[in-house]
Amino acid sequence: MADEKELINKIADGQVKLHQVEKFTDDVDEAVTIRRKFVEKVSNTELKHISKYSLSMEEALKRNIENPIGTVQIPVGIAGPLAIHGEHAEGEYYVPIATSEGALIASINRGFSAIRAGGGATARIIDDKMTRAPVIKTSSVSESLKIKTWIQTNFSKLKEAAESTTRHGKLVKIDPVVVVGKYVYPRFVYTTGDSMGMNMVTIATETALNVLMEETSGHVISLSGNVDVDKKPAAMNLIEGRGKTISAEISLPREVVAKTLKTTPEAIVEVNTAKNFVGSAISGSMGFNAHYANMIGGIFLATGQDEAHIVEGSLGITVAEENDGNLYFSVTLPDVPVATFGGGTRLETARECLEIMGVYGSGGVGKFAEIVAGTVLAGELSLMGALSAGHLARAHKDLGRG
Amino acid sequence: MADEKELINKIADGQVKLHQVEKFTDDVDEAVTIRRKFVEKVSNTELKHISKYSLSMEEALKRNIENPIGTVQIPVGIAGPLAIHGEHAEGEYYVPIATSEGALIASINRGFSAIRAGGGATARIIDDKMTRAPVIKTSSVSESLKIKTWIQTNFSKLKEAAESTTRHGKLVKIDPVVVVGKYVYPRFVYTTGDSMGMNMVTIATETALNVLMEETSGHVISLSGNVDVDKKPAAMNLIEGRGKTISAEISLPREVVAKTLKTTPEAIVEVNTAKNFVGSAISGSMGFNAHYANMIGGIFLATGQDEAHIVEGSLGITVAEENDGNLYFSVTLPDVPVATFGGGTRLETARECLEIMGVYGSGGVGKFAEIVAGTVLAGELSLMGALSAGHLARAHKDLGRG
Amino acid sequence: MADEKELINKIADGQVKLHQVEKFTDDVDEAVTIRRKFVEKVSNTELKHISKYSLSMEEALKRNIENPIGTVQIPVGIAGPLAIHGEHAEGEYYVPIATSEGALIASINRGFSAIRAGGGATARIIDDKMTRAPVIKTSSVSESLKIKTWIQTNFSKLKEAAESTTRHGKLVKIDPVVVVGKYVYPRFVYTTGDSMGMNMVTIATETALNVLMEETSGHVISLSGNVDVDKKPAAMNLIEGRGKTISAEISLPREVVAKTLKTTPEAIVEVNTAKNFVGSAISGSMGFNAHYANMIGGIFLATGQDEAHIVEGSLGITVAEENDGNLYFSVTLPDVPVATFGGGTRLETARECLEIMGVYGSGGVGKFAEIVAGTVLAGELSLMGALSAGHLARAHKDLGRG
Amino acid sequence: MADEKELINKIADGQVKLHQVEKFTDDVDEAVTIRRKFVEKVSNTELKHISKYSLSMEEALKRNIENPIGTVQIPVGIAGPLAIHGEHAEGEYYVPIATSEGALIASINRGFSAIRAGGGATARIIDDKMTRAPVIKTSSVSESLKIKTWIQTNFSKLKEAAESTTRHGKLVKIDPVVVVGKYVYPRFVYTTGDSMGMNMVTIATETALNVLMEETSGHVISLSGNVDVDKKPAAMNLIEGRGKTISAEISLPREVVAKTLKTTPEAIVEVNTAKNFVGSAISGSMGFNAHYANMIGGIFLATGQDEAHIVEGSLGITVAEENDGNLYFSVTLPDVPVATFGGGTRLETARECLEIMGVYGSGGVGKFAEIVAGTVLAGELSLMGALSAGHLARAHKDLGRG
Repeated sequence: MADEKELINKIADGQVKLHQVEKFTDDVDEAVTIRRKFVEKVSNTELKHISKYSLSMEEALKRNIENPIGTVQIPVGIAGPLAIHGEHAEGEYYVPIATSEGALIASINRGFSAIRAGGGATARIIDDKMTRAPVIKTSSVSESLKIKTWIQTNFSKLKEAAESTTRHGKLVKIDPVVVVGKYVYPRFVYTTGDSMGMNMVTIATETALNVLMEETSGHVISLSGNVDVDKKPAAMNLIEGRGKTISAEISLPREVVAKTLKTTPEAIVEVNTAKNFVGSAISGSMGFNAHYANMIGGIFLATGQDEAHIVEGSLGITVAEENDGNLYFSVTLPDVPVATFGGGTRLETARECLEIMGVYGSGGVGKFAEIVAGTVLAGELSLMGALSAGHLARAHKDLGRG
Repeated sequence: MADEKELINKIADGQVKLHQVEKFTDDVDEAVTIRRKFVEKVSNTELKHISKYSLSMEEALKRNIENPIGTVQIPVGIAGPLAIHGEHAEGEYYVPIATSEGALIASINRGFSAIRAGGGATARIIDDKMTRAPVIKTSSVSESLKIKTWIQTNFSKLKEAAESTTRHGKLVKIDPVVVVGKYVYPRFVYTTGDSMGMNMVTIATETALNVLMEETSGHVISLSGNVDVDKKPAAMNLIEGRGKTISAEISLPREVVAKTLKTTPEAIVEVNTAKNFVGSAISGSMGFNAHYANMIGGIFLATGQDEAHIVEGSLGITVAEENDGNLYFSVTLPDVPVATFGGGTRLETARECLEIMGVYGSGGVGKFAEIVAGTVLAGELSLMGALSAGHLARAHKDLGRG
Repeated sequence: MADEKELINKIADGQVKLHQVEKFTDDVDEAVTIRRKFVEKVSNTELKHISKYSLSMEEALKRNIENPIGTVQIPVGIAGPLAIHGEHAEGEYYVPIATSEGALIASINRGFSAIRAGGGATARIIDDKMTRAPVIKTSSVSESLKIKTWIQTNFSKLKEAAESTTRHGKLVKIDPVVVVGKYVYPRFVYTTGDSMGMNMVTIATETALNVLMEETSGHVISLSGNVDVDKKPAAMNLIEGRGKTISAEISLPREVVAKTLKTTPEAIVEVNTAKNFVGSAISGSMGFNAHYANMIGGIFLATGQDEAHIVEGSLGITVAEENDGNLYFSVTLPDVPVATFGGGTRLETARECLEIMGVYGSGGVGKFAEIVAGTVLAGELSLMGALSAGHLARAHKDLGRG
Repeated sequence: MADEKELINKIADGQVKLHQVEKFTDDVDEAVTIRRKFVEKVSNTELKHISKYSLSMEEALKRNIENPIGTVQIPVGIAGPLAIHGEHAEGEYYVPIATSEGALIASINRGFSAIRAGGGATARIIDDKMTRAPVIKTSSVSESLKIKTWIQTNFSKLKEAAESTTRHGKLVKIDPVVVVGKYVYPRFVYTTGDSMGMNMVTIATETALNVLMEETSGHVISLSGNVDVDKKPAAMNLIEGRGKTISAEISLPREVVAKTLKTTPEAIVEVNTAKNFVGSAISGSMGFNAHYANMIGGIFLATGQDEAHIVEGSLGITVAEENDGNLYFSVTLPDVPVATFGGGTRLETARECLEIMGVYGSGGVGKFAEIVAGTVLAGELSLMGALSAGHLARAHKDLGRG
């Protein structure tokens, strides 16, 4: 065992760096403790809860974190069951949601009730891919055009190189190949199985680019040229999709809308038009929905998805329609990067949350994506119901006054 | 103490709903256990880690979660120190980052090293507000114009009503008041002190709207008309800002760039142009940066911010400039909703993370926002440095080959 | 009179430049002829129609054109009457449309018929302004913040300077003042009377900036920093408006929709949702309408507006609603820069087109803007009607087949 | 010959409609006169110039206009020569520009001088296509997915149907096929030869859709679902291109920049960053350029292109780079729908303008598109030069004062 005090002093002196502590300790947990105590000392705090973890920090340190001092705990609640008819998910599922926003789970649950009363949600995966788009610099626009043509002509050669690096990743296409003057942005589109696949496609693309640089005059400026588009909101992803493109829908009889949501199909349609269509349009928004990010956030945190991908998951469009007095309601999310394997999903609590839904590991991601779609549907339906119930209540009050 | 088995059976039978378990138990923790066991049973899993929490579930249940079954643990690492010169933050700070993305903290730390070598980052809060924009429906466009004029004329009356509901919130302006045919979207702009303020401004706006509905013919369709814009990426927020609008910058001598980042100012400028400007532009992106969402995500999770607000925090622009051989580098984030009080910040681990930086509670939010800006600067600088170092390495190889 | 051949040879030799021809001729028309003959010679063409102009080229040369060789003729047709109830336009108006797109005027006329049958359109000017937003560079983000504060504090001083250059222009506000690192973008917002005002606000802003540069350390990089936003599509203008922000609406009885447009309110609402809302949303579009640009283009060309401003005029949102079996339909265009005085409006044919509507010169621009709104309403209603009539026809066919 | 007065009275009475006048006259010109006189009467104006046309109204009436009353004249000036090295355009060309904006042609000419001094512009057509994207409604998201798959599987069948309607149009692909809940938006991508091709692709797509409706349950709601995207600014077109995607570039020695543009490469790069990158980014703009719309507008009007397509032509990105003290400058316009055949190009003055460049008719459109690119390059370079010259002048003044 290391001499705690001495090590802490050495960290304070700069003799030992924060990421070197493991070299001087018997195990990772001891290093975690020492780093945490150092932090307590310099910040004059007592970190009683950060220290209360049960995860294997040794495993986490290999893949998920540097300089760990413990964990943060985020409450996880259970919502459900979600009744769903997907191609992969069929039946009823309980969904874990990690959040600190009070009322979110209650709201999702109200949506689940409505969905059950409506016979269950339909969910589909519309598309599935992961992308990487480097930026290549050339000497001129005419050279850019040649590189573009070269890429399109030599697709199979690039595919072979890319796929040599991965068992699960397949290079489906390179499209579009965008040219802006001297810059060329080929968008590599892969399928990645049950992994989210960001690392996989980065390595595969880099290998393919080596071939390109060997055989052409193009120079790779950056492995990502922001045309991917990773972790930024972008029309590219709205249009072309990224991760899983998912959609879920429900048809609710008028009585269910009245009983479960205390409103009418017409009121929901009106709020959807005023808020999700016109309000979003006039704001230059890419989110034509009420609050997809809440549900995406809650599931992503519970299941160890990359939190920065919540950005992409907030894109999408809600459609509400009144049909013969009943309500048709759908959500479409073009850009939901999720995994049931690798990355943060291996963290013990994340894995447990995935297991609750029966989707951990290989073969689970299709089912998981559909459950995500169904959960977003529930949360969206519930909030839109609540907003339109308020609208109705005010309308009655107006009438009463009139 | 409740009879566990019996309760679980009743939940399974639907006699007891998931949110009713607390009625039958001595305390919240027992209810948490029973719900978790129910979930274990129906999903045929063992939730060994979700159960290992130290948070007060009783407190969490009041404000942050429904149907809790435990917590998820997310590894938190320490980065730092960040050397910063702000108006609120001055000196050196260690920054906790919660993430499962390996290499993120290492990367931020490399940025912190560069920043220290450059004499520290400058950070400023450019603007500070929280917004709520309802949608009001009128009978016609001429009526909409009247309502718009009424709102502008009666600002002080609306302000009085709004502020009657809150001690800390101040209604600064209602601007713009957008009209689309029959719809009117007045954007209520508040300052909210150290709270993020979303609930505060919702209640205040609702009260103001009661006055409006009393005195005009306008009918409130929805308390949020998506012009706010909350938890969706939107040009509105890019332009007008929301939450804290923050910016941080550093000037790095050429030698520091070479030594710490293994690259040159010119290479960073070139990657910034090709990727963050041109690549983002051609993709219809709102994120003219490399990966703000990663740093925003890591800090938000550590400190109990609303995870869905990571969406807004991904907006922003990175500027790199070569000046007499040295590097000027800045990040600007127009839309970072953060709090050091209320919401998820009260969760025990979140509070501890805020305390590490000395920003928990009243009076801390300015300092916190500047530290966030400095941390985003570090992470962005580091990744841009790495990408441009790769670019340089490939360029040398190309030359050697030529 | 000049020796034609000799002059043409000198132009060919480069001894006389194209813009110097007037120096060697008795009048402008002679110079126009010589330039045209030079062009005919080098291009081996005969320009029989370009030469057939009646405009005063002498006047045009002063303000509207350089190196004139004649005019292009664009057919102008008459549509109408438009029945309109505005604040400025009340009654019936014939509207000249210059276009080469067959069926456009017929379509607008069908819309005008429907509008007359519905009792006339309501039109309103929601907002009115012209903007100029320079970019100022500072030494640091902290300096940027100071400049921002200085601008807000010294508004009246800047206003005085700006307004000293113009009789009609008024500086209403400088808002927002956007800061991105070292860059500051103050958006100067003016009213400009019956002129479009672009030149006016440029000169006024430049004068105000001289004061700013005298009293602060800010350096003006460019008189326009693209935050204006002039002649580019931008969410800024969608949100904040530019030029005239206009809206027009009509309520059409079900029978009128059936008789004039051969469709139903429900079909129009459905097409509007599928196309103008969802279709535009998923494409990352800023035009939530079917074809505003056609009507804006046709009127702009007829009346001498700046053709590059058609870009801004294409922004906007169409709303369709079914109300008790009848149709409510509105168009809203946030960004329509128009004038009835100055610029291209003084060209003889443009002036005549403005006179047809009784709006040429001082005092006419309000009326003109409302007529533009009413005409866009007609064209949009007509195309949406036609599309939905096709939809209905196909639906009947489907049923017949079924 | 008709009795003028009587006819005019009948029009006023509503007995003869405006589009019926030709039935009562010997020829179209007489009808034009009568309609114009009617307009003069009701508007109490004298239309002396609108009447002075030389176009064949008989021809125009067949394809380009309804209810003609004459033409508007727009001054056309000559700029040039443009020295260009394209794949289709090689050599020097004079370019006709129709505009009423003073100084535009002078500015373009200054750009042309710089380009000649730099050895000529390089121009390339990066891509070439015309698109039509209908919206199809289905009964559910699962049905939507089936329709999407059907479209992809039956591409050759759809292609055959589409191409049966046209000699020049080829259906290249249907991509993307976007699904939003019940709605499916297949984007039909064609090549269209020298025509702009909008009508061609509409008819072809309609025919293909008949096959789809025959063989699937999909119902076509609208032949255009706004995913095309026609005449609206949209990220779809920025990313995927529409019409001709064109790019032009020039490398200018430092001395040429100094002499012709009175500025430095560094100053131009700085203005480009501050204005075209950062300014456009923070405004939510799709035009990362200074004023493409001016040049596009001037050429489109001169050559009979559809004025509403100026909207699309305003999209694009300007890149400026300093290289060893010299300037590299490029423009890229992803979405320029142009023709040298059909539509408005057949109008006599438009045809003459196309002939000046030697591009009228079949086989000319490639050359024309490259000339457009070169002209946009010239105008953009010139304005960016002027803005940066002002920046430099102010900088010197600041120094002098300091």
